[in-house]
Amino acid sequence: MVTDAQQACFEAGIKFGSLYHQFAGTPVSPDSTRSLEAAMAEAIENQPFCESVDVSIDDERVAAAIDHENGYTELTGSLMTVEMRIDYEGVTARTRMEMEDGYPLMKLLDIDE
Amino acid sequence: MVTDAQQACFEAGIKFGSLYHQFAGTPVSPDSTRSLEAAMAEAIENQPFCESVDVSIDDERVAAAIDHENGYTELTGSLMTVEMRIDYEGVTARTRMEMEDGYPLMKLLDIDE
Amino acid sequence: MVTDAQQACFEAGIKFGSLYHQFAGTPVSPDSTRSLEAAMAEAIENQPFCESVDVSIDDERVAAAIDHENGYTELTGSLMTVEMRIDYEGVTARTRMEMEDGYPLMKLLDIDE
Amino acid sequence: MVTDAQQACFEAGIKFGSLYHQFAGTPVSPDSTRSLEAAMAEAIENQPFCESVDVSIDDERVAAAIDHENGYTELTGSLMTVEMRIDYEGVTARTRMEMEDGYPLMKLLDIDE
Repeated sequence: MVTDAQQACFEAGIKFGSLYHQFAGTPVSPDSTRSLEAAMAEAIENQPFCESVDVSIDDERVAAAIDHENGYTELTGSLMTVEMRIDYEGVTARTRMEMEDGYPLMKLLDIDE
Repeated sequence: MVTDAQQACFEAGIKFGSLYHQFAGTPVSPDSTRSLEAAMAEAIENQPFCESVDVSIDDERVAAAIDHENGYTELTGSLMTVEMRIDYEGVTARTRMEMEDGYPLMKLLDIDE
Repeated sequence: MVTDAQQACFEAGIKFGSLYHQFAGTPVSPDSTRSLEAAMAEAIENQPFCESVDVSIDDERVAAAIDHENGYTELTGSLMTVEMRIDYEGVTARTRMEMEDGYPLMKLLDIDE
Repeated sequence: MVTDAQQACFEAGIKFGSLYHQFAGTPVSPDSTRSLEAAMAEAIENQPFCESVDVSIDDERVAAAIDHENGYTELTGSLMTVEMRIDYEGVTARTRMEMEDGYPLMKLLDIDE
């Protein structure tokens, strides 16, 4: 038996893994952060039970990560913060990815049954 | 408050989304299915709390999906079955992705607390 | 010895392979085509020698490709047309990806030395 | 007009961009480098005109890149060397990706018409 709350958490995880591994590696510069944020959020919001996605790519961290003359870097978890809300059969799961001890940690913030 | 079982389900979802969106689109032919299965399983088993991953790419479906003279197609969910076992703080979640009504559905099979 | 024109063609190919394999598999619906087009173009324009990228995702083909109740599909070459212009040391290469015999063919249109 | 040598260079670039952006971001540890190398090579060899692909992921650099307790990192260009040979209508292009000044540079080594 799987509860609706457990299923909501599973769905939340799917969205995070999808977002991360679809878009990690994308060439990014301070000039292209806004369009990438919008595309990432709208793409993942297409997935089932995904009510909202908010992606914030940090322009200053992007600029600092550019370590060669070409003027861009590749998107990694350390450059962005992501929040999502999943609704599954009346259960709402709120999640967040942010840097913690140098690792972009994906976290369940709360589950509202 | 998030229970260990809910956290196990969240972790299980992350692995599925990661596997799918990292490898979907990979050029594949009946000659390259075994190496791709092995790489997908070993890559995702690196992730935290992921005890085992088994990927089976269906050679016949790959052959049938090749619709142009180049002799290969791109990996999609309809060409594979995936099973995973996640262990989080003593809770085991077993999951499976398989075709259901033409859609590659990711499912929680059971959660053993 | 490699000529500037040959190098321009090599650079053009890199951009096409990058664009395709970075973004293939992205969840897409008629509601999210514009943001994805913009992000794809701006991301690849970051790469060296890439003067312009134009991505057109076909809303009608996206709608027709949605074959399950979830209301979205995954981006593939059959859903989009892409044009790029590469400038390398004064050589301009113009390229295009479009459907030809059921296969999304990447083509060098002309090279202006 | 596009020459066969220019077309060979375009095809070489496509393979490099494909390989890089399909597999960048894959979770990797010293235990999973061999299977990932094999899958990357066999996947890209499926593409048209691609005679051979050799991928070498550097175990020591992978180990050094692991900067958190989870025991893995994500594949980037700085962790691997790639060589490819493209044959297009009798023209052979040899290419290589390796680190140069901290950037994984993709290079045309020679073109044999």
